[in-house]
Amino acid sequence: MHFERLKISFLAIFILAIFSQNSRAQSNTDSIMLRKIYNECMMNSNAYLHLEELCKEVGGRLAGSPQAAQAVDMFEKWGKTIPGVTVTKQPCMVPHWVRGRAEQAIIYRQGTSPIIMHPCALGNSVATPQKGIRAEVVEILRWSQLDSLGKAGKLRDKIVFYDRPMNPTFVDPGEAYGDAVDQRWGGASRAAKYGAVASVIRSVTHAYDAFPHTGVMGYEDSVKRIPAFALSTIDAALLAACVHGNPNLELYLWDECQMLGDVLSYNVIVEMKGTEHPEEIITVGGHLDSWDLAEGAHDDGTGVVQALEVIRIFQQLGIKPKRTIRAVAFMNEENGNRGGKAYAAAAKEKGEKHIAAIESDGGGFTPTGFSCSKGNRYQTALKHRWFGLLTAYGLRDFERDGGGTDISPLGRELNVNLFGLEVDAQRYFDYHHTANDVFENVNQREMNMGAAAMAMLVYLISEDK
Amino acid sequence: MHFERLKISFLAIFILAIFSQNSRAQSNTDSIMLRKIYNECMMNSNAYLHLEELCKEVGGRLAGSPQAAQAVDMFEKWGKTIPGVTVTKQPCMVPHWVRGRAEQAIIYRQGTSPIIMHPCALGNSVATPQKGIRAEVVEILRWSQLDSLGKAGKLRDKIVFYDRPMNPTFVDPGEAYGDAVDQRWGGASRAAKYGAVASVIRSVTHAYDAFPHTGVMGYEDSVKRIPAFALSTIDAALLAACVHGNPNLELYLWDECQMLGDVLSYNVIVEMKGTEHPEEIITVGGHLDSWDLAEGAHDDGTGVVQALEVIRIFQQLGIKPKRTIRAVAFMNEENGNRGGKAYAAAAKEKGEKHIAAIESDGGGFTPTGFSCSKGNRYQTALKHRWFGLLTAYGLRDFERDGGGTDISPLGRELNVNLFGLEVDAQRYFDYHHTANDVFENVNQREMNMGAAAMAMLVYLISEDK
Repeated sequence: MHFERLKISFLAIFILAIFSQNSRAQSNTDSIMLRKIYNECMMNSNAYLHLEELCKEVGGRLAGSPQAAQAVDMFEKWGKTIPGVTVTKQPCMVPHWVRGRAEQAIIYRQGTSPIIMHPCALGNSVATPQKGIRAEVVEILRWSQLDSLGKAGKLRDKIVFYDRPMNPTFVDPGEAYGDAVDQRWGGASRAAKYGAVASVIRSVTHAYDAFPHTGVMGYEDSVKRIPAFALSTIDAALLAACVHGNPNLELYLWDECQMLGDVLSYNVIVEMKGTEHPEEIITVGGHLDSWDLAEGAHDDGTGVVQALEVIRIFQQLGIKPKRTIRAVAFMNEENGNRGGKAYAAAAKEKGEKHIAAIESDGGGFTPTGFSCSKGNRYQTALKHRWFGLLTAYGLRDFERDGGGTDISPLGRELNVNLFGLEVDAQRYFDYHHTANDVFENVNQREMNMGAAAMAMLVYLISEDK
Repeated sequence: MHFERLKISFLAIFILAIFSQNSRAQSNTDSIMLRKIYNECMMNSNAYLHLEELCKEVGGRLAGSPQAAQAVDMFEKWGKTIPGVTVTKQPCMVPHWVRGRAEQAIIYRQGTSPIIMHPCALGNSVATPQKGIRAEVVEILRWSQLDSLGKAGKLRDKIVFYDRPMNPTFVDPGEAYGDAVDQRWGGASRAAKYGAVASVIRSVTHAYDAFPHTGVMGYEDSVKRIPAFALSTIDAALLAACVHGNPNLELYLWDECQMLGDVLSYNVIVEMKGTEHPEEIITVGGHLDSWDLAEGAHDDGTGVVQALEVIRIFQQLGIKPKRTIRAVAFMNEENGNRGGKAYAAAAKEKGEKHIAAIESDGGGFTPTGFSCSKGNRYQTALKHRWFGLLTAYGLRDFERDGGGTDISPLGRELNVNLFGLEVDAQRYFDYHHTANDVFENVNQREMNMGAAAMAMLVYLISEDK
């Protein structure tokens, strides 16, 4: 018995030693390859040149627009410059909302000159009547205030002005955004229920500047559709000061936005076939569309050029991945996510086996780690086996729940392991959905570090046992 | 025996429970206070207004200059607006180097027009002769290359052009800076030993742009002092291309820099007296001087306004610290560290008991943690007792050895526990020592997060048992 146990122990130690040696050898190989990937990206990436081309030659590219179509062609062209990959356009019907000419907002006060502001309509907003809307303004800071004033009939024929700021005491700006963006998304219909004629929000941002921030809003089905605007934080402060001084002042609003019929558009897929398990697919992507006002540099030009850079790095280094890797430029993340839905639907229909999807849609800032979807089977590896490999590159935040809008249907429909690139996001909402989201505000090195991070994670998943 | 052991065990558990309750209670109190400190800073900080005043009303403020004297007055004025503190100017003699009129660099090639570049002299550089220097250029990428060419007599009467870039594959830009800055510091004397008549470096930065970066250089005592210049990375690339195409081209250089006699200047100390251990001093600071070319926003306007903000927060929240807290605006970090040395010398002479010093001199970017000097007695607390309290605010990098130039004499002379505010530093060297280090390139929120981080660490040390 004693002897037997000893034999078993020896065997166990022997097996453990072999296993541990293999595991160490694998870790060494991985470490060397990650360094190669990082260096290739930091020295030879063309992601920044691509970003410049996308921002400056195409610019704003809302789904359904001619610019979005131009961006599809551009991404397809880039993909085709990489040897040994296949490039596919995957069709999807997308909404087609147009802003029209520049919106107007003018403050009228008795006895003084009007004040001209520089608003923007929120995405999906309807137009005002052709002569515009002129009405008194009610500033709203809490939903309970909206409801009590509304029930007292004090919002009838008024313009509701949602002025609750992003909370500066939240450490994570994404959480502060989530806490304030309900005004943008649902404010119009909630005001319309009480008879308001238009809604205006203070832009959802920490920045105090002159840029109005657009972004998607939606209407409830049974409620009258009223136009919805955003003011820059400077204009909002001005309007608030005027309203406090003169509760009877009037605001004039004008826009000519409209929703046209759906349009055919595309996701663009650049695929590098796996050598050992070609049927197992890893998706890495961002979204190609942006708001019309913005060059869409941080949101999300960086995501798509980073995704393509992952494929370029693999090709350049001669890495033959065990699994299939797809860089995907998704269409219509901003106002419908039709591209993300079409991608997941096609995957489901074809019975494809998607093992992981990684999205970059938090801006081209210094990467800090990856968020993971609940139950993500690689989270343990990230926290243990791969931890040291990735912390060497400043990546060590793997705690948060997440993924990305484009890849979320893959999670819902096919239970795919989702990852989101985490970055130092403090200034993301300064630029988000504004004319200030330009190429010049992206730092080349920081964006390349993000691309390298994505390539390293793709490598680890692709080459995993 | 059994019974006795049981009794001891019970006693142990009882003591442990009391201790752990106390410790939990302390941790709860700390947690609440840190949240108050953070909120006060994120909502009411005036650090950004101070920074604007310093950058825009004073601007570049090299030690010994009238602007540096103006900055001393300004910091003193700010300190005096805070009730219940004492403000002291601590004298120190500082070097007084002046740049003179704008430097010149012109490339002359046979048969084509000259190319005018926009160089800057390195700090401490001597002047060229009044008619300038015109000589052939030798590009140097490695020290071994300098030595072999020098020994072969091929650097005699030449201009040595150090063109080794910051290595983009280093994850930490501070390490990449350290790896390349030897060209700036010692390049002139090493070239002069081989008979070179001037030296020019490629600016020490990851950025590819038109800003030349100055910074301190030094001469070896026994070697002829030759003028030392920096070119922007764009100008350096241009010069390199010209040299490769035409090894016999000539470069013209002109400057009129000179080192004048030492000048009286000051550190400014804003002190809040401790209530329980007033003799134990915690210093929090940055440096008030900057290079003459720069507004010194990130380097290091942010450091001094953050340090003062720490005191303002304590005063505003009515925190009566157990230990004495000093916000110190140090003078002459950039080219001599006379302020830091004077502060430590005075502390030593008076037999002061300094228990900790915290410096912010890495720019006003998102804070990530604190570097600690070797043997820092608080490092264990940072990694265990205080860890959860600080990670809640994104602070979790406590691994690196460090402190700061200004406080380093405290470490050397008095063995003080040193800390450096760690930040997301990827873009720091884009701005460092250039005309591009302006107020507009500092993000208000990121800088305030740094001030809050410093205040939280000061609180934890001050209120520690």
